[in-house]
Amino acid sequence: MNNHTATAVKSALDNWNLQLSRLNQLLDGLSDDQLLKEVAPGRNRGVYLLGHLASVHDRMLPLLHMGSSLYPELESIYIQNPDNKKNDFTPAQLREAWKKVNEQLNTQFAKMDVADWFHRHDAISEEDFKNEPHRNKLNVLMNRTGHLAYHYGQMIFLKK
Amino acid sequence: MNNHTATAVKSALDNWNLQLSRLNQLLDGLSDDQLLKEVAPGRNRGVYLLGHLASVHDRMLPLLHMGSSLYPELESIYIQNPDNKKNDFTPAQLREAWKKVNEQLNTQFAKMDVADWFHRHDAISEEDFKNEPHRNKLNVLMNRTGHLAYHYGQMIFLKK
Repeated sequence: MNNHTATAVKSALDNWNLQLSRLNQLLDGLSDDQLLKEVAPGRNRGVYLLGHLASVHDRMLPLLHMGSSLYPELESIYIQNPDNKKNDFTPAQLREAWKKVNEQLNTQFAKMDVADWFHRHDAISEEDFKNEPHRNKLNVLMNRTGHLAYHYGQMIFLKK
Repeated sequence: MNNHTATAVKSALDNWNLQLSRLNQLLDGLSDDQLLKEVAPGRNRGVYLLGHLASVHDRMLPLLHMGSSLYPELESIYIQNPDNKKNDFTPAQLREAWKKVNEQLNTQFAKMDVADWFHRHDAISEEDFKNEPHRNKLNVLMNRTGHLAYHYGQMIFLKK
């Protein structure tokens, strides 16, 4: 493993943590009432996007071979279905899930060697991975960082 | 340069191109009138965000040692100042700038070797870079990919 590889992984992790810290700072400054509002007229509510992000990150655990999802019950509400504008989980429950899931991910990330990031993720077979080595854990990390930035750009509209 | 390093660079470029293609697809489906609207009540207009993204990407050219900015005149309007809700540049001009800047970037990217991505960018001195080798061109690419995703998440609200 050369220095460039380690540097690339560090950059990907830095960018992941940057987006996480931005959203966490936003969440700290938003009341539960603000989270229950739509981010723009006719669009998803803050709670829906928070549940969506929590569930997408929760699913990263099995995808990256880091054990089972902690909150599998979020998936049908916050990924498979659109915002139904009801209160399925409370803002407090979603804040807690978001916190726990990211803590678990970052605990697991801290245990990884640089080389581990270039192993296949769980959505590609060993056979296919031989021809598509970029479908690895690092690529999942980069992709989810973009996904997080995308929804953070929407949730920031909850701020006055 | 080992395979892992090349794979990491490929993932970063894939994610950059993914976000670019998403925004370009959105732009193709939006009329100029739609672009002139605010993405949400009291927020930036689509044209402002397009000018902002065009200018930020334009500034990547000197930052990555790829020559001069093509549209330096965008910077004061779309980066240094907030949306003044006037039509500084027309939607057609901004679409053109956006297209040209990204074409120029991707032309330059295609000429780079994997190792080139680990050279310093222009905002860090050679001296400091010795101690902070992650402040390289690859990190700029990842960071700007997140920035693009963030604003794409807002511009998508221009769609009906």
